Amino acid sequence: MDVGFIGLGRMGAGMAGNLLRAGHRVTVYNRTPSKQEALVNKGADPAAQVGDACRGEAVITMVADDSAIESVVHGENGLIKRLSRDAIHICMATIGVSLSERLSALHAEAGQGYVAAPVFGRPDAAAAGMLFIVAAGKKDALDRCQPLFDAMGQQTFVMGDRPPMANLVKLSGNYLLASVIESLGEAMALIGKAGIDRRAYLNMLTSTLFNAPVYKTYGGLIADETFEPAGFAAPLGYKDICLALAAAEELRVPMPLASLLRDRLLSLLAQGGDGLDWSAVSQLAAKDAGLRDRLA
Amino acid sequence: MDVGFIGLGRMGAGMAGNLLRAGHRVTVYNRTPSKQEALVNKGADPAAQVGDACRGEAVITMVADDSAIESVVHGENGLIKRLSRDAIHICMATIGVSLSERLSALHAEAGQGYVAAPVFGRPDAAAAGMLFIVAAGKKDALDRCQPLFDAMGQQTFVMGDRPPMANLVKLSGNYLLASVIESLGEAMALIGKAGIDRRAYLNMLTSTLFNAPVYKTYGGLIADETFEPAGFAAPLGYKDICLALAAAEELRVPMPLASLLRDRLLSLLAQGGDGLDWSAVSQLAAKDAGLRDRLA
Amino acid sequence: MDVGFIGLGRMGAGMAGNLLRAGHRVTVYNRTPSKQEALVNKGADPAAQVGDACRGEAVITMVADDSAIESVVHGENGLIKRLSRDAIHICMATIGVSLSERLSALHAEAGQGYVAAPVFGRPDAAAAGMLFIVAAGKKDALDRCQPLFDAMGQQTFVMGDRPPMANLVKLSGNYLLASVIESLGEAMALIGKAGIDRRAYLNMLTSTLFNAPVYKTYGGLIADETFEPAGFAAPLGYKDICLALAAAEELRVPMPLASLLRDRLLSLLAQGGDGLDWSAVSQLAAKDAGLRDRLA
Amino acid sequence: MDVGFIGLGRMGAGMAGNLLRAGHRVTVYNRTPSKQEALVNKGADPAAQVGDACRGEAVITMVADDSAIESVVHGENGLIKRLSRDAIHICMATIGVSLSERLSALHAEAGQGYVAAPVFGRPDAAAAGMLFIVAAGKKDALDRCQPLFDAMGQQTFVMGDRPPMANLVKLSGNYLLASVIESLGEAMALIGKAGIDRRAYLNMLTSTLFNAPVYKTYGGLIADETFEPAGFAAPLGYKDICLALAAAEELRVPMPLASLLRDRLLSLLAQGGDGLDWSAVSQLAAKDAGLRDRLA
Repeated sequence: MDVGFIGLGRMGAGMAGNLLRAGHRVTVYNRTPSKQEALVNKGADPAAQVGDACRGEAVITMVADDSAIESVVHGENGLIKRLSRDAIHICMATIGVSLSERLSALHAEAGQGYVAAPVFGRPDAAAAGMLFIVAAGKKDALDRCQPLFDAMGQQTFVMGDRPPMANLVKLSGNYLLASVIESLGEAMALIGKAGIDRRAYLNMLTSTLFNAPVYKTYGGLIADETFEPAGFAAPLGYKDICLALAAAEELRVPMPLASLLRDRLLSLLAQGGDGLDWSAVSQLAAKDAGLRDRLA
Repeated sequence: MDVGFIGLGRMGAGMAGNLLRAGHRVTVYNRTPSKQEALVNKGADPAAQVGDACRGEAVITMVADDSAIESVVHGENGLIKRLSRDAIHICMATIGVSLSERLSALHAEAGQGYVAAPVFGRPDAAAAGMLFIVAAGKKDALDRCQPLFDAMGQQTFVMGDRPPMANLVKLSGNYLLASVIESLGEAMALIGKAGIDRRAYLNMLTSTLFNAPVYKTYGGLIADETFEPAGFAAPLGYKDICLALAAAEELRVPMPLASLLRDRLLSLLAQGGDGLDWSAVSQLAAKDAGLRDRLA
Repeated sequence: MDVGFIGLGRMGAGMAGNLLRAGHRVTVYNRTPSKQEALVNKGADPAAQVGDACRGEAVITMVADDSAIESVVHGENGLIKRLSRDAIHICMATIGVSLSERLSALHAEAGQGYVAAPVFGRPDAAAAGMLFIVAAGKKDALDRCQPLFDAMGQQTFVMGDRPPMANLVKLSGNYLLASVIESLGEAMALIGKAGIDRRAYLNMLTSTLFNAPVYKTYGGLIADETFEPAGFAAPLGYKDICLALAAAEELRVPMPLASLLRDRLLSLLAQGGDGLDWSAVSQLAAKDAGLRDRLA
Repeated sequence: MDVGFIGLGRMGAGMAGNLLRAGHRVTVYNRTPSKQEALVNKGADPAAQVGDACRGEAVITMVADDSAIESVVHGENGLIKRLSRDAIHICMATIGVSLSERLSALHAEAGQGYVAAPVFGRPDAAAAGMLFIVAAGKKDALDRCQPLFDAMGQQTFVMGDRPPMANLVKLSGNYLLASVIESLGEAMALIGKAGIDRRAYLNMLTSTLFNAPVYKTYGGLIADETFEPAGFAAPLGYKDICLALAAAEELRVPMPLASLLRDRLLSLLAQGGDGLDWSAVSQLAAKDAGLRDRLA
């Protein structure tokens, strides 16, 4: 297929590379143009501005947040104006449900398709084409996108025919991750203060009932108190929990655990944790217990 | 070895059976004597009272709660009085940390050994000898118990040299399980109210980041709203969270998520959920969201 | 003074009446023009559109929420365009801190003054000129407004020189009110379930340590479960707690009690409480305790 | 009347003095005998042991906590053994509901009366006979106690015919006080971080809707961050919230705000706040917001 790819950060660069490898024609755009080079060397076409990436059947956006999406969608050079009728905007960024709803309406008005397809996976999974893709949108649009998804991910999960459904699922997934972090943080403060070795404890957990990657990954970070460099920075985690709560508010679903997570992440930021991995919220339970005065 | 086994409920019966199968001599006692029969038929010796199960090198207790332990430990026929010097009380029940501390002191005074070895696993795992055993106590006592652990479990995790450490770890494990239930309950209320299929959602979760048995088991119960018959009844779950919080209080470790779980389980009981599985707390998020008036 | 008054709801009508009574010239505007009549009969000048109320030294806005303020401020007929240089916009509505910041900047750019002066008090206090006015803004602007404040309120409290300070204080006041409601709701569920008479209990509280109007007013509503007609409707209370939390988020101040209040109010709305007084959140504690199935 | 008085701390000394002043014959006992002297000089009879204070129509206990009550009630020299039939034990200490239930049963078995009559008020109010007395018990017993209550307090509130009702009401009152502290703590962190003067803010609150003594007293402590010397020490406040939650648990009444308060007080203790006034929990909101590293 002939597609545009906007947003060549640590995730996007790998994803676009896999599209090229699968034989698709890819026009790449990034706000900082230097990031385009490596992909152009592999056969991508460079775009000088967002609009130049809109010439094909689809354009994929993989940018940082809601406002970054707004900036590529609107305006003279934006997707709404520049994408052909029947072309599809595949938004793979983690954005809010209400923005996704607005995009869905705007593209429909413009006769364009719109699919939400956020992903689970870290940069190494993106580079290896092993992402999990959570997609929602009209069936025919999803079908047309499937070859692209196959190039970027190991599995695609269709969550419904309205794009915001995929965004909600993605946000709820990050909420579940944050819940794991908080629960482990409190548990480690508890057993740690009792003099039990945290690594031995974690080994027991992940050898038994909790043998999932998230417990291993986050449990290890928490047991070792290694929060730098940030795999997923606290402000991003905070943003996602806030987006989940905003969606929950819209749907009128009270989520007390999500509220607790939001307050914990806000505490982390208020105490200078902007540069830390979001799993550093686990240190707040340790602080409350008097185990330390400052964040790691 | 020559051991006594007290408490032949759904867990204990399977565990004692595995001890017999491994060639140990087992004297069994249960408050309701009829439960002894099946094991006696397999070669166990029956005990008419608790004290009669105290003649060997060790006695294992697998009873319901703190007060059941108290009733077999104290008195003329209790373990303290009847167990030989150097014999070991292996307490495998899920009891509180402070009771475990008291037992530790009492047995030491009496010249007896005391090991805490609570387990993770359900009755089928107990029957199959596939339990995970979380043990703590003096090294030589643990070494002497190991052949028994090998007969009952697939793996033993030593958590420290003071028995209450194992109880704390076990309680913290149940706290982590309850956290999973609450987080899934809120997430399912959220995505369910948005019209997303809960089974498809769960399938995505457990195929990706959350592919651990607990997410599959509890996620399935929550998605299908199947809370009867109770695999682990709400009052037991409530009791364990309260014991975890009591230990946390003793150690001065605030655990806001555990407090939330306690309040949720108390709500469940207050609304008539005594007979339901503890995963029915997930319905409270659904009630809060106006998705239903009553518990399932 | 020659002033405009925009927003003649239950609060605004009384306030504008007091300005007339004090001898000020008042031009009144309301989206539903029929509400202007009573005041015109008392000597007010009618305004056909927002801009027509902008001819004097100041214009007071007393509208429902942030979006209502936005709609009278912007546009060809809005305050920014129509207010003279040096005239003052006195915003007495309960609006968000960030909107107040934006208004402050916009009016400054336009060479106009801007003062935030939200109030505490119900319609009867507004009618009697007995409001408490919480004001913030530049000193000279506040001084110019004082005769107006004197006509509408019994006391003015200056909170600082930046207008958003007054809005934050007002929102924090509503947060404190909601805290009183929640605390009384839980206490009444507790003592009520124990068979203690709620009115006798409330009488004791308000005769001793809690002899403040808020405990009497809200305690009475909660004890008697009288939530209709709504003195302050649940959606408005919810909006204010959300605005307080938005300000807290901006300032990076975690407020776990405010988060709890937000979730309670959201539960109330999710369960059909839109038409009830916000003190009906107290019923949620009663529901949790199994004291009733439905909201009053 | 001829009465015994056990417990001559800062509260009890003032109360016993007022009984003497009103013409009652008072036999005083205190674990540390030196505290009896001042009262003996005013006409009280000294008691060498608890039992010696049990010779009259009633004995009042005003001791520190549940275990102190247990120690004066049981044993050869305890109230149960030594109090005459028909004499009344008036327990004015703040004790737990379940202990009060047990005392009620024990005294009934012994043919003795039992009345619970905890108080609101600080040592100065005790000395001035201005306490508020919250009483519960059988009507005839309460009637017989009334002259004593009149000597010690400014008003008596009867909460029911079962003594534990008074204890529950007292505990719920302390829960309401702690709620005020937490709500003010969060509000002060919020407005303080925005640069608003905390004293001016408090003045506004207590001049308007919150003009109750508790807001003035605790608001002042929080605004000025004066937590030493402790008027009511954090461990006592923690104990009372725990007793309130224990009663709530027994009644199956979830109280999420009380749980939050418990965790806050536990945090305060875990971080070294044992010697501070319980209003120092307000500092935790300030810490969470990054306003300070350590408690005051």
